[in-house]
Order: sequence, then C-alpha cells, then structure tokens
Amino acid sequence: MYIPTYDDMLAAHDRIAPHIRRTPVRTSDYLNELTGAELFFKCENFQEPGAFKVRGATNAVFGLDADQAARGVATHSSGNHASCLSYAARLRGIPCNVVMPRTAPQAKKDTVRRYGGVITECEPSTSSREETFARVQAETGGDFVHPYNDPRVIAGQGTCARELWEQTGGMDAVVAPIGGGGMISGTCLTLSTLAPDCQVIAAEPEQADDAYRSFKAGHIIADDAPKTIADGLLVPLKDLTWHFVSNHVTEIYTASDAEIIEAMKLTWKHLRVVMEPSSAVPLAVILKNRAAFAGKRVGVIITGGNVDLDRLPWMPA
Amino acid sequence: MYIPTYDDMLAAHDRIAPHIRRTPVRTSDYLNELTGAELFFKCENFQEPGAFKVRGATNAVFGLDADQAARGVATHSSGNHASCLSYAARLRGIPCNVVMPRTAPQAKKDTVRRYGGVITECEPSTSSREETFARVQAETGGDFVHPYNDPRVIAGQGTCARELWEQTGGMDAVVAPIGGGGMISGTCLTLSTLAPDCQVIAAEPEQADDAYRSFKAGHIIADDAPKTIADGLLVPLKDLTWHFVSNHVTEIYTASDAEIIEAMKLTWKHLRVVMEPSSAVPLAVILKNRAAFAGKRVGVIITGGNVDLDRLPWMPA
Repeated sequence: MYIPTYDDMLAAHDRIAPHIRRTPVRTSDYLNELTGAELFFKCENFQEPGAFKVRGATNAVFGLDADQAARGVATHSSGNHASCLSYAARLRGIPCNVVMPRTAPQAKKDTVRRYGGVITECEPSTSSREETFARVQAETGGDFVHPYNDPRVIAGQGTCARELWEQTGGMDAVVAPIGGGGMISGTCLTLSTLAPDCQVIAAEPEQADDAYRSFKAGHIIADDAPKTIADGLLVPLKDLTWHFVSNHVTEIYTASDAEIIEAMKLTWKHLRVVMEPSSAVPLAVILKNRAAFAGKRVGVIITGGNVDLDRLPWMPA
Repeated sequence: MYIPTYDDMLAAHDRIAPHIRRTPVRTSDYLNELTGAELFFKCENFQEPGAFKVRGATNAVFGLDADQAARGVATHSSGNHASCLSYAARLRGIPCNVVMPRTAPQAKKDTVRRYGGVITECEPSTSSREETFARVQAETGGDFVHPYNDPRVIAGQGTCARELWEQTGGMDAVVAPIGGGGMISGTCLTLSTLAPDCQVIAAEPEQADDAYRSFKAGHIIADDAPKTIADGLLVPLKDLTWHFVSNHVTEIYTASDAEIIEAMKLTWKHLRVVMEPSSAVPLAVILKNRAAFAGKRVGVIITGGNVDLDRLPWMPA
C-alpha cells in the first residue's frame, strides 16, 4: 500500500491547476451568529462538474502514460466521482466506463452521460457494485480509478485544503463529510504537514455511521447498503483512507437525516448556494456540537452541488 | 431632478466598501456552450442580505447627517430594498420603517424583521403602496429612501457594474433585470463613462413589460398591479430611472414566466447558486435572443437570492 505524501499533493496541484477551478470561500454573518463560530465555506460545488472529486479524478487521468490513456479509465461510484472522472477523461480525450447504482439520482446519471461516460448499472449495494465493476473492468481494460482508495485520488483531494488554508489565512479546524474517506484523507494529508495543529473533523450521517463506529472501534467496520438522504456518503472506508482516518482525524460526529436536511435548507437560504445533502452534514454537526466549535475559525468543505431540483428532500413526495 | 454622476458613484463606492461584499463572478462552461456567449455572472445574491440593493441602501444610510440619522429612514418596497435598507440601518444603528405588500414572500418579510425593520403592510398595488407610505412617513419622520428613484440609490447600484468591469477585464454587453430601473440606471451611469461601447441591455418579464413598452413609446407607461413570477420587477419606471433608460439602454428584451422559470432552474443546476426568479430574466432573454449575444462577452447581474424554499416555482402548488 503506497501512502501518498505532501509532495504528491503539491505535484497533483501543479498537474490539475489548468483543469480545475480555484473555488471561492463564502461566509455568512447569519450562520456565524447561529453557530458562534467563524465559518469559511469552500465551494467545491462550484467546480464545473459540481464536486471536489474533479481534483482527484483529474490528477489520475492526467498522470496516465500514453498507452494506458488510450485504454481509458473505469470506476464505480455513487455519483460525483463518476461524473468528475468522465469530465476529466473528456478533457484528455480518453474513454471512461462507470458502474453506478440504478438508484443513483437521475441528475447524476445525466451528468455522467453529458460528459461522455458510459454507464453500467448495478444494484445499490457494495457487493453488487464490486462484482459488476470487475466484469466491466475486465472487458474494457480501463485503468481503475477508485473513488477514494487510490493515492492519486487522495493526493488530488488534498489540494482543496491547501487552497482553503491559503484563502482563509489559517483555521482552527476543518470539517468535511466522510463516506469512503477520500476528502477527509486528502485533508489530513495536507494539513498534517501544512498545519499540524489544525483539527480535522469528519461529519457522517447517523444512518451510514460506519466510519464513526470504525473510528471508535479502532478497525474498519463496513455496512452493506446503508440508507440516508446523504447519498454521496454510502460507501465504506478502505485500507488507504483508514490509514489517514485512524492516524490524523481528531473526531467524527454524526447527524440525523432530519438535521442534515435542516442544515441544507439553512445553507441554501443564507449562503445562497446549491449543495447536496452530503455537503450539509458538516453544518449539521457544527450546529449539534456547538461547544466544540464556538469561538473557532472553522473551514467547511461544501463537497458537491449536484441535486435533482425536482426531488428536493423537503418537497412533498 | 438631480442626475447622479460618475463621481457620485465613485464616492458611493468609497462610502459603502467597508459595509458590502465585493461579490464573486461565476462562470459555467455548460451555460456558455448552451448560449454560444461567454457569460460572467455577478453574484449579488451573495451580499449578506441577499441582493444588490444593499449597495444603494448603504450609500443612502451612511450619507445621512446626524440629525436625520436619528429619525432614521423609511421606504416602500416589494422586498429586497426593504431588507437591504433595514440591514444598512441596523449597521448604522438607526430606525427603519418599511411599507410592504401583504402578498410579498414570507421569506422577505422574515428577513426585514430579522434586521430590525418595522413593516406596515399594504395592498399589492402601486396606488395602495404610495398612500400607505405617505402616512407612515409622516408619522415617523424617517428620511424617504426610494427603492430606485433616488440619486443616492442609483449611485450605489452603479458600483456593481464597476466591480464587474474590473473583475472581467471588459465585456461587450451587460444584461440586468429591469423593474423600477435602479440597477439598470446605475449600470448605465457607470458604463456610459467607464466603457461607453459596452451595451446595457434590460431584461423584463412579459407579464410586467411596462419598461419595454415605455422604451418603445418614448415615454413612461405604468401598469397598476402586474402579475409575474418575477416578483422583484413589479414596479414602474420613474423620472430619474427613465432618464437613464431612455438615454443609455441599448435594448429591452422580455421573457415569459415559463422561460424565466426554465432559466432559473438552469442556473440553479449548472451555476449552483440560489437566485430569485427576477434574477433569471437575463438568462431567459439571452437564451431567447441567441443571435444578439452569441460570440460576445456578456455580464449578467444576479440581482438577488431571497426565495421561499418551500414555495419554489417548479414545486406542485
């Protein structure tokens, strides 16, 4: 297992800078008053394909040698990694095959196809996803770019915390959602060197709290097919992300789906950005654990903004 | 009638800069491909109270002498001017009285009250609004800050186009919504000196097209109580804004409510910002008049982001 380094992150940043956006940081006096903290929201939902995952995907795609690039890339993903890898592959002009749960939001499927990704659907469970992927990968010969358990991907995601640190001039803590742990691992990778005193806090849905339970138990615990409104956070930790989570994460907090939806509406209303339920988990845990954040400068990574506007979680079913 | 000058705009910018945000400019490759133009969206929805009107309101409030400041300010408004004037008055610590239609969105009333504004409701017509306001203004002695027909307000709004010009490094055209004409007048004020070759194009709902009909007729035509989803654009031109519209606006285009809603969804989906129906009229007219904009660098002012998330226009009633 190769553990990506701070220098890998710096190299990734140089490689991807021409292809990604340096996303803005937004603040809200209202949300600061509400939480008692000074919040800095890093708007990765403003990446062209709508999620931070374009960082890791672009780093993987543009790091391929010419022979492998000709055979393209392949992956499985609950959504944003799929669209971001398709986007990155299109930028380089190479094929991208994607295994995606049939239950993924229509908006995410549409986006993958708009970027030229070829989708093979699977059942919404980790086991079905992995079986289907093995078949697709064998058929196409595409290089497997795992959504998070890949050193190239983690080094790419780490570039976000580097920008956030530069843009804010320093923070006491950074809070990001945790699913498979790619963003959190990249954040740990970067901050453990750049700002070792800055806390890295993971935010997880109660209804998919395998990372929380793993963190408390000291070993990886995986669920098969958890259900939460935060559909970007359904996947389990793997060895590489567990390395970063177990060594560098300060704390993991969880929030209920109702709390996540409330935080999502608060952000839409007061920050006026469109973000996914998964991206609302950090604000939900900050509101729920006020004492842990009050008086601090806290970075919050808004991980993605791809939602189905016709099926918002507060709409009547 | 005092016509505000370019120097008034520069003085306004110095006066308000400590109190407002220099809002970011967003772009979308997808929307550029769709329109054939290069679009630069100025995110005034990211002002703390959610609308560009904080510029003019802050300029008026911080320009008052101490005696008048003690009696505060008063206005009538369909929404954002009310919340922005309340916000500015609270920043200076002075009273703000607001006459607002009883049909205004609940989200806008809530915002005014959160900023300490005192609301007196009227019927949703221009005549009722003006009658009620005369009474409130006589009772309180507050300085009347008109939502748009006020040189201080127009000079303040003009600071937005100045920032947009600096942030983009130049454009062929700027498109903004037109209701009473405050933003369009400020844009004309600034660009007629700063960039006289840059077109200023107004975008208006078909169902409240009094500015369009005025522009074509050569004199002000006012509707009483028009109805459109773009509820920030219901008010008529007045003498001061008519001066700028008739002398400096290149063209006025209109769009139907269905086209406005479609453009609003497109922006939420691809730009991932929360904006009001009124702010979607520019993109609606750009999509409808593709040939007029294709190949050009076009600034689009996203005027506001205060919407009732429980009553979005594409939700079932």
